[in-house]
Amino acid sequence: MSERFFLGSPARSGQATLVGDEARHLARVLRAKVGDLVRVFDGSGGEWSARVTQIDRDAVALDVGDQLPTAPLPERSVTLAVALPRGGRQKWLVEKLTELGVARLVPLVTERGVAEATESARARLERGVVEACKQCGRNTLMEIAEPATLESLAAALPPGAVRLIAHPDGIALDALSRPAPGGAVVAAVGPEGGFTPKEILVADRQGFERASLGPHILRIETAAVALAARLM
Amino acid sequence: MSERFFLGSPARSGQATLVGDEARHLARVLRAKVGDLVRVFDGSGGEWSARVTQIDRDAVALDVGDQLPTAPLPERSVTLAVALPRGGRQKWLVEKLTELGVARLVPLVTERGVAEATESARARLERGVVEACKQCGRNTLMEIAEPATLESLAAALPPGAVRLIAHPDGIALDALSRPAPGGAVVAAVGPEGGFTPKEILVADRQGFERASLGPHILRIETAAVALAARLM
Repeated sequence: MSERFFLGSPARSGQATLVGDEARHLARVLRAKVGDLVRVFDGSGGEWSARVTQIDRDAVALDVGDQLPTAPLPERSVTLAVALPRGGRQKWLVEKLTELGVARLVPLVTERGVAEATESARARLERGVVEACKQCGRNTLMEIAEPATLESLAAALPPGAVRLIAHPDGIALDALSRPAPGGAVVAAVGPEGGFTPKEILVADRQGFERASLGPHILRIETAAVALAARLM
Repeated sequence: MSERFFLGSPARSGQATLVGDEARHLARVLRAKVGDLVRVFDGSGGEWSARVTQIDRDAVALDVGDQLPTAPLPERSVTLAVALPRGGRQKWLVEKLTELGVARLVPLVTERGVAEATESARARLERGVVEACKQCGRNTLMEIAEPATLESLAAALPPGAVRLIAHPDGIALDALSRPAPGGAVVAAVGPEGGFTPKEILVADRQGFERASLGPHILRIETAAVALAARLM
Protein backbone atom coordinates (compact mmCIF):
# COMPACT_ATOMS: atom_id res chain seq x y z
CA MET A 1 0.00 0.00 0.00
CA SER A 2 1.79 3.13 -1.16
CA GLU A 3 -0.55 5.83 0.12
CA ARG A 4 0.74 8.25 2.70
CA PHE A 5 -1.07 9.07 5.94
CA PHE A 6 -0.78 12.08 8.19
CA LEU A 7 -0.22 11.60 11.91
CA GLY A 8 -1.60 14.46 13.99
CA SER A 9 1.06 13.90 16.65
CA PRO A 10 4.84 13.41 16.29
CA ALA A 11 5.91 10.04 14.93
CA ARG A 12 8.64 8.33 16.87
CA SER A 13 9.63 4.73 16.50
CA GLY A 14 7.00 2.85 18.41
CA GLN A 15 3.22 3.16 18.59
CA ALA A 16 1.08 5.75 16.83
CA THR A 17 -2.59 6.18 16.05
CA LEU A 18 -4.33 7.52 12.97
CA VAL A 19 -7.59 9.27 13.81
CA GLY A 20 -10.41 11.11 12.03
CA ASP A 21 -10.44 11.21 8.24
CA GLU A 22 -7.06 9.54 7.98
CA ALA A 23 -8.25 6.52 9.98
CA ARG A 24 -11.55 6.29 8.12
CA HIS A 25 -9.84 6.54 4.73
CA LEU A 26 -7.42 3.75 5.58
CA ALA A 27 -9.94 1.48 7.28
CA ARG A 28 -13.09 1.99 5.21
CA VAL A 29 -12.06 3.24 1.78
CA LEU A 30 -8.87 1.24 1.41
CA ARG A 31 -10.14 -1.61 3.63
CA ALA A 32 -6.80 -2.06 5.33
CA LYS A 33 -6.16 -5.20 7.36
CA VAL A 34 -4.02 -5.82 10.41
CA GLY A 35 -0.49 -6.41 9.16
CA ASP A 36 -0.72 -4.05 6.15
CA LEU A 37 2.22 -1.70 5.60
CA VAL A 38 1.66 2.01 5.08
CA ARG A 39 3.77 5.17 5.01
CA VAL A 40 3.18 7.95 7.52
CA PHE A 41 4.46 11.50 8.00
CA ASP A 42 3.90 13.91 10.87
CA GLY A 43 4.52 17.22 9.11
CA SER A 44 7.86 17.88 10.80
CA GLY A 45 10.02 16.56 7.98
CA GLY A 46 10.25 12.80 8.32
CA GLU A 47 8.49 9.84 6.77
CA TRP A 48 8.21 6.38 8.28
CA SER A 49 7.00 2.96 7.34
CA ALA A 50 4.35 1.61 9.70
CA ARG A 51 2.36 -1.58 10.16
CA VAL A 52 -1.34 -1.70 11.02
CA THR A 53 -1.80 -3.38 14.39
CA GLN A 54 -5.46 -2.66 15.23
CA ILE A 55 -8.49 -1.24 13.43
CA ASP A 56 -11.29 0.42 15.38
CA ARG A 57 -14.27 2.42 14.26
CA ASP A 58 -12.49 5.80 14.12
CA ALA A 59 -8.90 4.95 14.87
CA VAL A 60 -6.17 2.78 13.40
CA ALA A 61 -3.26 1.76 15.60
CA LEU A 62 0.14 1.51 13.96
CA ASP A 63 3.52 0.13 14.81
CA VAL A 64 5.92 2.78 13.47
CA GLY A 65 9.09 1.36 11.99
CA ASP A 66 12.08 2.71 10.13
CA GLN A 67 12.40 6.29 9.00
CA LEU A 68 12.44 6.47 5.22
CA PRO A 69 14.82 8.63 3.17
CA THR A 70 13.22 12.00 2.45
CA ALA A 71 13.67 14.81 -0.04
CA PRO A 72 15.97 17.67 0.92
CA LEU A 73 14.37 20.86 2.24
CA PRO A 74 14.15 23.81 -0.17
CA GLU A 75 17.25 26.01 -0.37
CA ARG A 76 15.32 29.17 0.42
CA SER A 77 12.58 29.89 2.91
CA VAL A 78 9.77 31.42 0.84
CA THR A 79 6.78 33.11 2.48
CA LEU A 80 3.78 34.20 0.44
CA ALA A 81 1.56 36.85 2.05
CA VAL A 82 -1.67 36.82 0.07
CA ALA A 83 -5.00 38.65 0.24
CA LEU A 84 -6.92 35.39 0.01
CA PRO A 85 -9.26 34.88 -2.95
CA ARG A 86 -12.63 33.21 -2.48
CA GLY A 87 -13.60 29.54 -2.27
CA GLY A 88 -12.22 27.25 -4.92
CA ARG A 89 -9.42 29.62 -5.83
CA GLN A 90 -8.26 29.61 -2.21
CA LYS A 91 -8.12 25.82 -2.24
CA TRP A 92 -6.13 25.79 -5.46
CA LEU A 93 -3.73 28.40 -4.08
CA VAL A 94 -2.95 26.30 -1.01
CA GLU A 95 -2.51 23.12 -3.04
CA LYS A 96 -0.09 24.73 -5.50
CA LEU A 97 1.97 26.63 -2.91
CA THR A 98 2.32 23.42 -0.90
CA GLU A 99 3.44 21.43 -3.94
CA LEU A 100 5.99 24.07 -4.88
CA GLY A 101 7.57 23.97 -1.42
CA VAL A 102 6.53 27.35 0.00
CA ALA A 103 7.35 27.44 3.73
CA ARG A 104 4.57 29.71 4.94
CA LEU A 105 1.34 31.31 3.76
CA VAL A 106 0.24 34.47 5.55
CA PRO A 107 -3.38 35.54 4.98
CA LEU A 108 -2.85 39.22 4.20
CA VAL A 109 -5.36 41.64 5.68
CA THR A 110 -5.93 44.43 3.15
CA GLU A 111 -8.43 47.25 2.72
CA ARG A 112 -9.96 45.72 -0.42
CA GLY A 113 -9.67 42.06 0.53
CA VAL A 114 -12.78 39.88 0.22
CA ALA A 115 -12.09 36.68 2.14
CA GLU A 116 -12.01 36.89 5.90
CA ALA A 117 -9.37 34.76 7.55
CA THR A 118 -11.64 33.24 10.18
CA GLU A 119 -10.69 30.29 12.35
CA SER A 120 -12.81 27.95 10.23
CA ALA A 121 -11.19 29.28 7.06
CA ARG A 122 -7.81 28.65 8.61
CA ALA A 123 -8.75 25.10 9.55
CA ARG A 124 -9.88 24.53 5.96
CA LEU A 125 -6.59 25.86 4.61
CA GLU A 126 -4.68 23.57 6.97
CA ARG A 127 -6.65 20.55 5.77
CA GLY A 128 -5.74 21.59 2.22
CA VAL A 129 -2.06 21.64 3.19
CA VAL A 130 -2.25 18.11 4.62
CA GLU A 131 -4.05 16.79 1.52
CA ALA A 132 -1.49 18.36 -0.82
CA CYS A 133 1.42 17.06 1.31
CA LYS A 134 0.02 13.53 1.19
CA GLN A 135 -0.26 13.68 -2.57
CA CYS A 136 3.00 15.42 -3.51
CA GLY A 137 5.31 13.65 -1.08
CA ARG A 138 6.08 16.70 1.03
CA ASN A 139 6.87 15.86 4.67
CA THR A 140 7.00 19.34 6.20
CA LEU A 141 3.65 21.08 6.41
CA MET A 142 3.35 24.53 4.88
CA GLU A 143 2.57 26.82 7.82
CA ILE A 144 -0.69 28.77 7.70
CA ALA A 145 0.27 31.85 9.71
CA GLU A 146 -1.93 34.23 11.66
CA PRO A 147 -3.50 36.88 9.42
CA ALA A 148 -1.35 40.01 9.19
CA THR A 149 -1.34 43.46 7.62
CA LEU A 150 1.66 44.58 5.56
CA GLU A 151 2.84 46.47 8.60
CA SER A 152 2.61 43.64 11.10
CA LEU A 153 4.05 41.24 8.53
CA ALA A 154 7.10 43.45 8.02
CA ALA A 155 7.61 43.93 11.75
CA ALA A 156 7.91 40.16 12.24
CA LEU A 157 10.41 39.46 9.42
CA PRO A 158 14.03 38.48 10.07
CA PRO A 159 16.37 41.43 9.28
CA GLY A 160 17.95 40.00 6.11
CA ALA A 161 14.73 38.84 4.45
CA VAL A 162 14.13 39.97 0.87
CA ARG A 163 10.74 41.75 0.65
CA LEU A 164 8.78 41.84 -2.58
CA ILE A 165 5.34 43.16 -3.43
CA ALA A 166 3.49 42.29 -6.64
CA HIS A 167 2.74 45.53 -8.42
CA PRO A 168 1.89 46.36 -12.06
CA ASP A 169 4.47 49.17 -12.08
CA GLY A 170 7.20 47.02 -10.60
CA ILE A 171 10.32 45.84 -12.34
CA ALA A 172 10.68 42.35 -13.77
CA LEU A 173 11.41 39.66 -11.21
CA ASP A 174 14.58 38.69 -13.07
CA ALA A 175 16.06 42.08 -12.32
CA LEU A 176 15.19 42.01 -8.61
CA SER A 177 17.04 40.71 -5.59
CA ARG A 178 16.65 37.01 -5.04
CA PRO A 179 17.75 35.61 -1.71
CA ALA A 180 20.92 33.54 -1.64
CA PRO A 181 20.54 29.84 -0.83
CA GLY A 182 19.77 29.68 2.87
CA GLY A 183 18.09 33.08 2.73
CA ALA A 184 14.50 34.10 3.29
CA VAL A 185 12.07 35.97 1.06
CA VAL A 186 8.54 37.21 1.56
CA ALA A 187 6.35 38.16 -1.39
CA ALA A 188 3.07 40.04 -0.90
CA VAL A 189 0.10 39.74 -3.27
CA GLY A 190 -2.86 42.11 -2.98
CA PRO A 191 -6.60 41.66 -3.53
CA GLU A 192 -8.43 41.90 -6.87
CA GLY A 193 -8.77 45.65 -6.69
CA GLY A 194 -5.08 45.99 -5.82
CA PHE A 195 -3.41 47.56 -2.82
CA THR A 196 -4.57 51.07 -1.89
CA PRO A 197 -2.12 53.99 -2.26
CA LYS A 198 -1.86 54.01 1.54
CA GLU A 199 -0.88 50.33 1.60
CA ILE A 200 1.71 50.91 -1.14
CA LEU A 201 3.17 53.71 0.96
CA VAL A 202 3.45 51.34 3.92
CA ALA A 203 5.16 48.75 1.71
CA ASP A 204 7.61 51.36 0.40
CA ARG A 205 8.49 52.43 3.92
CA GLN A 206 8.97 48.83 5.00
CA GLY A 207 11.44 48.19 2.18
CA PHE A 208 9.29 46.04 -0.12
CA GLU A 209 10.56 46.06 -3.72
CA ARG A 210 7.86 46.20 -6.40
CA ALA A 211 7.88 43.18 -8.70
CA SER A 212 5.92 42.97 -11.93
CA LEU A 213 4.71 39.67 -13.33
CA GLY A 214 4.12 40.83 -16.88
CA PRO A 215 1.58 42.94 -18.73
CA HIS A 216 -1.63 41.05 -17.87
CA ILE A 217 -3.90 41.41 -14.88
CA LEU A 218 -3.19 38.20 -13.01
CA ARG A 219 -5.69 36.69 -10.64
CA ILE A 220 -4.55 36.61 -7.03
CA GLU A 221 -3.73 32.91 -7.03
CA THR A 222 -1.94 33.10 -10.39
CA ALA A 223 0.32 35.89 -9.12
CA ALA A 224 1.06 34.00 -5.90
CA VAL A 225 1.87 30.73 -7.67
CA ALA A 226 3.99 32.47 -10.31
CA LEU A 227 5.96 34.27 -7.59
CA ALA A 228 6.48 31.01 -5.73
CA ALA A 229 7.69 29.29 -8.90
CA ARG A 230 10.12 32.11 -9.58
CA LEU A 231 11.48 32.35 -6.06
CA MET A 232 11.97 28.69 -5.13
CA MET B 1 -18.89 49.92 -19.26
CA SER B 2 -15.37 48.53 -18.87
CA GLU B 3 -15.92 44.88 -19.78
CA ARG B 4 -14.10 43.47 -22.76
CA PHE B 5 -15.80 41.51 -25.53
CA PHE B 6 -14.35 39.07 -28.01
CA LEU B 7 -15.06 39.49 -31.71
CA GLY B 8 -14.96 36.22 -33.62
CA SER B 9 -13.84 38.02 -36.78
CA PRO B 10 -11.09 40.62 -37.26
CA ALA B 11 -11.87 44.09 -35.95
CA ARG B 12 -11.19 46.91 -38.34
CA SER B 13 -12.43 50.43 -37.94
CA GLY B 14 -16.03 50.27 -39.04
CA GLN B 15 -18.82 47.83 -38.33
CA ALA B 16 -18.59 44.61 -36.33
CA THR B 17 -21.03 42.20 -34.76
CA LEU B 18 -20.89 40.34 -31.46
CA VAL B 19 -22.62 36.96 -31.64
CA GLY B 20 -23.34 33.98 -29.40
CA ASP B 21 -22.41 34.15 -25.72
CA GLU B 22 -20.68 37.50 -26.14
CA ALA B 23 -23.81 39.10 -27.56
CA ARG B 24 -26.10 37.51 -24.97
CA HIS B 25 -23.83 38.57 -22.11
CA LEU B 26 -23.76 42.17 -23.28
CA ALA B 27 -27.43 42.41 -24.17
CA ARG B 28 -29.12 40.32 -21.47
CA VAL B 29 -26.79 40.16 -18.50
CA LEU B 30 -25.36 43.67 -18.71
CA ARG B 31 -28.52 45.08 -20.36
CA ALA B 32 -26.57 47.26 -22.75
CA LYS B 33 -28.37 50.02 -24.62
CA VAL B 34 -27.79 51.53 -28.03
CA GLY B 35 -25.08 54.14 -27.62
CA ASP B 36 -23.18 52.35 -24.82
CA LEU B 37 -19.40 52.19 -25.15
CA VAL B 38 -17.55 48.88 -24.81
CA ARG B 39 -14.06 47.57 -25.46
CA VAL B 40 -13.50 44.76 -27.98
CA PHE B 41 -10.55 42.60 -29.01
CA ASP B 42 -10.26 40.09 -31.83
CA GLY B 43 -7.45 37.91 -30.55
CA SER B 44 -4.86 39.17 -33.00
CA GLY B 45 -3.28 41.72 -30.65
CA GLY B 46 -5.35 44.88 -30.77
CA GLU B 47 -8.08 46.38 -28.63
CA TRP B 48 -10.66 48.91 -29.76
CA SER B 49 -13.37 51.06 -28.30
CA ALA B 50 -16.77 50.42 -29.87
CA ARG B 51 -20.28 51.82 -29.59
CA VAL B 52 -23.45 49.70 -29.56
CA THR B 53 -25.57 50.54 -32.61
CA GLN B 54 -28.20 47.78 -32.61
CA ILE B 55 -29.31 45.00 -30.26
CA ASP B 56 -31.00 41.88 -31.64
CA ARG B 57 -31.89 38.60 -29.99
CA ASP B 58 -28.53 36.91 -30.54
CA ALA B 59 -26.38 39.63 -32.04
CA VAL B 60 -25.16 43.08 -31.08
CA ALA B 61 -24.00 45.44 -33.83
CA LEU B 62 -21.10 47.73 -33.01
CA ASP B 63 -19.47 50.75 -34.52
CA VAL B 64 -15.76 50.10 -33.99
CA GLY B 65 -13.77 53.22 -33.21
CA ASP B 66 -10.20 53.98 -32.19
CA GLN B 67 -7.62 51.34 -31.44
CA LEU B 68 -6.60 51.53 -27.78
CA PRO B 69 -3.01 51.30 -26.53
CA THR B 70 -2.15 47.70 -25.71
CA ALA B 71 0.42 45.89 -23.61
CA PRO B 72 3.66 44.82 -25.30
CA LEU B 73 3.92 41.21 -26.45
CA PRO B 74 6.04 38.86 -24.29
CA GLU B 75 9.77 38.90 -25.01
CA ARG B 76 9.90 35.16 -25.54
CA SER B 77 7.60 32.79 -27.37
CA VAL B 78 6.80 30.07 -24.83
CA THR B 79 5.05 26.84 -25.83
CA LEU B 80 3.84 24.37 -23.23
CA ALA B 81 3.26 20.82 -24.47
CA VAL B 82 1.20 19.11 -21.80
CA ALA B 83 -0.38 15.69 -21.30
CA LEU B 84 -3.72 17.24 -20.37
CA PRO B 85 -5.13 16.52 -16.91
CA ARG B 86 -8.84 15.85 -16.47
CA GLY B 87 -11.78 18.24 -16.16
CA GLY B 88 -11.44 21.11 -13.76
CA ARG B 89 -7.67 20.91 -13.70
CA GLN B 90 -7.60 21.32 -17.47
CA LYS B 91 -9.66 24.49 -17.13
CA TRP B 92 -7.27 25.89 -14.52
CA LEU B 93 -4.29 25.06 -16.67
CA VAL B 94 -5.65 26.99 -19.65
CA GLU B 95 -6.67 29.97 -17.53
CA LYS B 96 -3.28 30.26 -15.85
CA LEU B 97 -1.17 29.72 -18.98
CA THR B 98 -3.24 32.37 -20.77
CA GLU B 99 -2.81 34.87 -17.94
CA LEU B 100 0.94 34.29 -17.82
CA GLY B 101 1.30 35.01 -21.53
CA VAL B 102 2.11 31.56 -22.92
CA ALA B 103 1.91 31.67 -26.74
CA ARG B 104 0.78 28.12 -27.43
CA LEU B 105 -0.54 25.03 -25.64
CA VAL B 106 0.03 21.70 -27.37
CA PRO B 107 -2.05 18.78 -26.03
CA LEU B 108 0.68 16.17 -25.68
CA VAL B 109 -0.21 12.64 -26.71
CA THR B 110 1.57 10.23 -24.34
CA GLU B 111 1.35 6.54 -23.54
CA ARG B 112 0.03 7.13 -20.02
CA GLY B 113 -2.10 10.20 -20.73
CA VAL B 114 -5.71 10.19 -19.54
CA ALA B 115 -7.50 13.03 -21.31
CA GLU B 116 -8.20 12.62 -24.99
CA ALA B 117 -7.76 15.76 -27.04
CA THR B 118 -11.02 15.46 -28.95
CA GLU B 119 -12.50 18.23 -31.06
CA SER B 120 -15.02 19.05 -28.33
CA ALA B 121 -12.24 19.16 -25.74
CA ARG B 122 -10.34 21.53 -27.98
CA ALA B 123 -13.36 23.78 -28.40
CA ARG B 124 -13.72 23.85 -24.62
CA LEU B 125 -10.06 24.80 -24.20
CA GLU B 126 -10.46 27.58 -26.75
CA ARG B 127 -13.45 28.97 -24.90
CA GLY B 128 -11.32 28.95 -21.75
CA VAL B 129 -8.64 30.95 -23.56
CA VAL B 130 -11.17 33.60 -24.63
CA GLU B 131 -12.61 33.86 -21.11
CA ALA B 132 -9.16 34.26 -19.57
CA CYS B 133 -8.14 36.84 -22.21
CA LYS B 134 -11.24 38.90 -21.50
CA GLN B 135 -10.49 38.91 -17.80
CA CYS B 136 -6.73 39.46 -17.80
CA GLY B 137 -6.52 42.05 -20.56
CA ARG B 138 -4.65 39.86 -23.02
CA ASN B 139 -5.36 40.71 -26.66
CA THR B 140 -3.61 37.85 -28.44
CA LEU B 141 -5.26 34.47 -27.98
CA MET B 142 -3.15 31.61 -26.69
CA GLU B 143 -3.12 29.08 -29.53
CA ILE B 144 -4.50 25.62 -28.80
CA ALA B 145 -2.43 23.54 -31.20
CA GLU B 146 -3.23 20.17 -32.76
CA PRO B 147 -2.40 17.28 -30.41
CA ALA B 148 1.14 15.99 -30.93
CA THR B 149 3.52 13.33 -29.68
CA LEU B 150 6.99 14.34 -28.48
CA GLU B 151 8.30 13.24 -31.86
CA SER B 152 5.88 15.21 -34.00
CA LEU B 153 6.21 18.19 -31.67
CA ALA B 154 10.01 18.21 -32.08
CA ALA B 155 9.78 17.84 -35.84
CA ALA B 156 7.72 21.03 -36.10
CA LEU B 157 9.93 23.27 -33.91
CA PRO B 158 12.04 26.11 -35.29
CA PRO B 159 15.74 25.13 -35.32
CA GLY B 160 16.90 27.46 -32.52
CA ALA B 161 14.10 26.66 -30.06
CA VAL B 162 15.15 25.67 -26.54
CA ARG B 163 13.59 22.29 -25.65
CA LEU B 164 12.87 21.32 -22.07
CA ILE B 165 11.16 18.33 -20.53
CA ALA B 166 9.97 18.20 -16.92
CA HIS B 167 11.68 15.27 -15.26
CA PRO B 168 12.36 14.40 -11.60
CA ASP B 169 16.01 13.62 -12.41
CA GLY B 170 16.54 16.84 -14.34
CA ILE B 171 18.71 19.74 -13.29
CA ALA B 172 17.30 22.90 -11.74
CA LEU B 173 15.71 25.29 -14.20
CA ASP B 174 18.05 28.07 -13.09
CA ALA B 175 20.99 26.12 -14.41
CA LEU B 176 19.39 25.38 -17.78
CA SER B 177 19.37 27.25 -21.05
CA ARG B 178 16.78 30.00 -21.20
CA PRO B 179 16.06 31.52 -24.58
CA ALA B 180 17.31 35.04 -25.23
CA PRO B 181 14.68 37.74 -25.63
CA GLY B 182 13.10 37.14 -29.01
CA GLY B 183 13.78 33.42 -28.76
CA ALA B 184 11.45 30.45 -28.52
CA VAL B 185 11.17 27.71 -25.92
CA VAL B 186 9.02 24.61 -25.67
CA ALA B 187 8.56 22.80 -22.37
CA ALA B 188 6.97 19.34 -22.21
CA VAL B 189 5.05 18.04 -19.19
CA GLY B 190 4.05 14.38 -18.97
CA PRO B 191 1.01 12.62 -17.50
CA GLU B 192 0.50 11.63 -13.84
CA GLY B 193 2.37 8.36 -14.24
CA GLY B 194 5.25 10.16 -15.97
CA PHE B 195 6.76 9.63 -19.39
CA THR B 196 7.66 6.05 -20.29
CA PRO B 197 11.34 5.13 -20.74
CA LYS B 198 10.66 4.95 -24.48
CA GLU B 199 9.30 8.51 -24.48
CA ILE B 200 12.29 9.76 -22.49
CA LEU B 201 14.54 8.17 -25.08
CA VAL B 202 12.69 10.02 -27.85
CA ALA B 203 13.04 13.28 -25.91
CA ASP B 204 16.78 12.70 -25.42
CA ARG B 205 17.25 12.07 -29.12
CA GLN B 206 15.28 15.18 -30.00
CA GLY B 207 17.49 17.36 -27.82
CA PHE B 208 15.13 18.02 -24.90
CA GLU B 209 16.97 19.02 -21.73
CA ARG B 210 15.60 17.55 -18.49
CA ALA B 211 14.40 20.18 -16.05
CA SER B 212 13.52 19.48 -12.43
CA LEU B 213 10.98 21.56 -10.53
CA GLY B 214 12.03 20.55 -7.04
CA PRO B 215 11.73 17.49 -4.83
CA HIS B 216 7.92 17.09 -4.76
CA ILE B 217 5.64 15.25 -7.15
CA LEU B 218 3.89 18.12 -8.88
CA ARG B 219 0.50 17.73 -10.46
CA ILE B 220 0.48 18.19 -14.21
CA GLU B 221 -1.01 21.67 -14.12
CA THR B 222 1.31 22.79 -11.31
CA ALA B 223 4.37 21.74 -13.29
CA ALA B 224 3.09 23.46 -16.44
CA VAL B 225 2.22 26.72 -14.66
CA ALA B 226 5.53 26.73 -12.73
CA LEU B 227 7.47 26.21 -15.98
CA ALA B 228 5.53 29.02 -17.65
CA ALA B 229 6.23 31.36 -14.73
CA ARG B 230 9.93 30.54 -14.87
CA LEU B 231 10.28 30.85 -18.63
CA MET B 232 8.33 34.02 -19.38
